[in-house]
Amino acid sequence: MLTLDTHLQLALDLVGVFAFALSGGLVAVKKGLDLFGVLVLAAAAALGGGVMRDVLIGDTPPVGISDWRLLGMAVLAGLITFLFHPGVEHISRVVRVLDAAGLAVFAIGGSLKALGAGVDPVAAVLVGGITAVGGGMVRDVLAGQVPEVLRRELYALPALLGSTLIVAAHHWDVMSFGVIWVCVALVFGIRMGAVILDVHAPRPLRTGDLP
Amino acid sequence: MLTLDTHLQLALDLVGVFAFALSGGLVAVKKGLDLFGVLVLAAAAALGGGVMRDVLIGDTPPVGISDWRLLGMAVLAGLITFLFHPGVEHISRVVRVLDAAGLAVFAIGGSLKALGAGVDPVAAVLVGGITAVGGGMVRDVLAGQVPEVLRRELYALPALLGSTLIVAAHHWDVMSFGVIWVCVALVFGIRMGAVILDVHAPRPLRTGDLP
Amino acid sequence: MLTLDTHLQLALDLVGVFAFALSGGLVAVKKGLDLFGVLVLAAAAALGGGVMRDVLIGDTPPVGISDWRLLGMAVLAGLITFLFHPGVEHISRVVRVLDAAGLAVFAIGGSLKALGAGVDPVAAVLVGGITAVGGGMVRDVLAGQVPEVLRRELYALPALLGSTLIVAAHHWDVMSFGVIWVCVALVFGIRMGAVILDVHAPRPLRTGDLP
Repeated sequence: MLTLDTHLQLALDLVGVFAFALSGGLVAVKKGLDLFGVLVLAAAAALGGGVMRDVLIGDTPPVGISDWRLLGMAVLAGLITFLFHPGVEHISRVVRVLDAAGLAVFAIGGSLKALGAGVDPVAAVLVGGITAVGGGMVRDVLAGQVPEVLRRELYALPALLGSTLIVAAHHWDVMSFGVIWVCVALVFGIRMGAVILDVHAPRPLRTGDLP
Repeated sequence: MLTLDTHLQLALDLVGVFAFALSGGLVAVKKGLDLFGVLVLAAAAALGGGVMRDVLIGDTPPVGISDWRLLGMAVLAGLITFLFHPGVEHISRVVRVLDAAGLAVFAIGGSLKALGAGVDPVAAVLVGGITAVGGGMVRDVLAGQVPEVLRRELYALPALLGSTLIVAAHHWDVMSFGVIWVCVALVFGIRMGAVILDVHAPRPLRTGDLP
Repeated sequence: MLTLDTHLQLALDLVGVFAFALSGGLVAVKKGLDLFGVLVLAAAAALGGGVMRDVLIGDTPPVGISDWRLLGMAVLAGLITFLFHPGVEHISRVVRVLDAAGLAVFAIGGSLKALGAGVDPVAAVLVGGITAVGGGMVRDVLAGQVPEVLRRELYALPALLGSTLIVAAHHWDVMSFGVIWVCVALVFGIRMGAVILDVHAPRPLRTGDLP
């Protein structure tokens, strides 16, 4: 099956892990956690989605805990946040761009890995979405807050859209590097658009809003 | 091994998924989550218990993420809650009856699936209980509240009782459709009795209550 | 592969399960949960780390839900806490000593089990750490508080240190009962030292602390 080149996949994974680990470390600093808490939240945010993906498709032990390069990158980002967190906050725009890149890579890569493991299309879409947003959910649950993905922004929908497209491409046998890159770019682009334009998912009507 | 008829099992599963998804959607609406948050909490409440069951017995990918009918029913219930939530709250009695039915079906069905996978009796009882209450726990943890099953009502005990009976029937080789239905009815009946009579599990003595 | 004697391993596991279950029960009592909530938090604290370990290394169903002795010990400790919790609080020093013993046994035992399952060294270290602190994390998340391990004390670091040493001993082929016991004693000793001396992990600088 066609997948991303191994070295390229690793390079993209490391970008996503780095960005997500910064987000985990920043949440930990805001919550006043100690060094270990910062490192754990950084690792949970960066690796949690991939661990869920691998547990769900039965590929144990999950690569997130067995590949020292991913873990090392997460710990490095956690240490950077611990030591230089005022600086990390100053470059929060850069962090958001990296985060959108991580979202795109994790969603598409997660779906591709699930397809490679032979799971059904619906499961492959969901596994891609869970890979992309699962780490952030673990981060927020451990930090004692309602997961940001549930309450704030158009975040998971682009990931699910990209996963759906890549699974459709697999289903119709039109998978190619071009298709993969278009899907990654699409998720990244929609997410960045939502950040820039401050677009949110719709909210339910409150009882008080009813006529 | 004797199990529920496949079509009947699916029909019952869909009832449980629908009821649990309504409960998840209502919690999300109360917390002010957006459309995606409502759909995720609906799916987490409806499918979380089954996903835990399948991960624990090693049957991956879990049916909760690979069977589009279960996922579709959860999303449908989430959409209904999002669009018509004041109405859903008005029929909260109907939701509670459906919820008790879901509890019963998930507990007995979860234990039967675990027995079919060859796990030990103690594990089969626990897997049944986790199938029944796991989704509600995920729902509440994601919504930032202490799981309702831990603090409010006689909820998990009927599920564990039913699971214990079905595992005992398997152990003593007296499994039959009649036994399965009696167990489902028993869990449903006890749960409805607890709702109607407002029965709660006992609480620990507070220090101030001591003589 | 050399591991702890089966009977000794079980005896140590039961000590750890008992101590962790007391901690889970006490948190539940403080949160005002009912009998079922006390038992669930006791079981979650005692068995959660081992369940995560077994799911991560693909050994399902996890021993924490299939071995009735571990579950029975957790339920017993939960009942004791429910019935006699003011007394359990009075012996909180004893509980902390037991807890440090549980931490040591779970960390070393978790890494040994992971090595026995053939996982890589980095994964074996992490699995040991997760076995040791995972139950307490589940306990706190279910109780609606930020996990204690993330915010209060030098708790996880001795576990990870012990796991690293046992994995190194395996890697360099110098595993022996003596090495295992030294690692267990080291984790226990460092943890007790942190309790007695009130040592904490460092915290990040607050913005207001900067010169």
